[in-house]
Amino acid sequence: MNDQTIARIRKIVDDRDWEQFHTPANLAKSIAIEAGELLECFQWSDTDFDLEHVKEELADVLVYCRNMLDRLGLDEDEIVNAKLTKNEAKYPVEKSRGNSLKYTEL
Amino acid sequence: MNDQTIARIRKIVDDRDWEQFHTPANLAKSIAIEAGELLECFQWSDTDFDLEHVKEELADVLVYCRNMLDRLGLDEDEIVNAKLTKNEAKYPVEKSRGNSLKYTEL
Amino acid sequence: MNDQTIARIRKIVDDRDWEQFHTPANLAKSIAIEAGELLECFQWSDTDFDLEHVKEELADVLVYCRNMLDRLGLDEDEIVNAKLTKNEAKYPVEKSRGNSLKYTEL
Amino acid sequence: MNDQTIARIRKIVDDRDWEQFHTPANLAKSIAIEAGELLECFQWSDTDFDLEHVKEELADVLVYCRNMLDRLGLDEDEIVNAKLTKNEAKYPVEKSRGNSLKYTEL
Repeated sequence: MNDQTIARIRKIVDDRDWEQFHTPANLAKSIAIEAGELLECFQWSDTDFDLEHVKEELADVLVYCRNMLDRLGLDEDEIVNAKLTKNEAKYPVEKSRGNSLKYTEL
Repeated sequence: MNDQTIARIRKIVDDRDWEQFHTPANLAKSIAIEAGELLECFQWSDTDFDLEHVKEELADVLVYCRNMLDRLGLDEDEIVNAKLTKNEAKYPVEKSRGNSLKYTEL
Repeated sequence: MNDQTIARIRKIVDDRDWEQFHTPANLAKSIAIEAGELLECFQWSDTDFDLEHVKEELADVLVYCRNMLDRLGLDEDEIVNAKLTKNEAKYPVEKSRGNSLKYTEL
Repeated sequence: MNDQTIARIRKIVDDRDWEQFHTPANLAKSIAIEAGELLECFQWSDTDFDLEHVKEELADVLVYCRNMLDRLGLDEDEIVNAKLTKNEAKYPVEKSRGNSLKYTEL
């Protein structure tokens, strides 16, 4: 997400005085709620979905993730890279290549 | 997310030949699963949470969102801005300022 | 769920003094968290799943649903039948037979 | 849930020829989607919620759980009691009384 988009998200929250509702717990609920709406696009079929609807619901998840990063003062690249380092160790290429096994099963 | 982080996510998927598992439906499930794990950080308390754990679970949500953007060939800023435009219309500042009402109740 | 199972669930909560944590909001989070774990059984495949794991996660959802019914003093059959009446009206047999369309699309 | 309610749920599915959509994976998605809608009742407040809405969303979760029990030929009391036995062992009264720690932290 570029700086302009991030600034726009912050302005929307600020203009509406919504920061008071953006506790970490409420944002975690919000991400889960929107993830459920995204999943609903695929409720009865994995292949026959409405792309426009998917785009909207995925955007909602991303906006609440950004709200949570802001609320907790986190840097997206920092937390993602820290997790990727863990994932790379948990899923060594030679063991996980071509399969979807969980690391506990590798 | 900067280009370097995005490239790293793509390389992890590519090195492990995981693209075959990354159908839009499987990624929607994955986002919902990780959103549930993020929510678990706040299961019994809204205020007493483990920040390190929150960072990891939020990162997992963001990585799967990135996988879905990639799978569907979407531009994050484009879909987020399109949704923000809708949100701004649904939540006019004068009506939604200082409250958390859903647009259907405004 | 029969009365004996319900009594056992209540005793587990009571013996551990867990009622203090069982606010409606915490139980809603718990149901969503366990629903995410149930979904994880189907994360990468719709057909290749571990039935024993599914049984455990589905049971977890059902137990938290029972906790919520108890917390709110609700009768399961009453709320389910009230919703079924609504569903029957929203999904008339002649319109919804053999398709999975949402009622808003019928 | 009593036998009459269960029979009514089955008849609704049967009358509409919906069994074809009720794969275990689709039902797991459906439970997660409805759990998200239930959670939405508590999105911005833990205490100020619409009980009628909660009842409907909880009922939806319960109906899809019943559909999944039926689809997999499971007995609700059997799977719940099997899980309760595990939970009782993971959460001994003396260790878990009055706290909400996860068994891995006890």
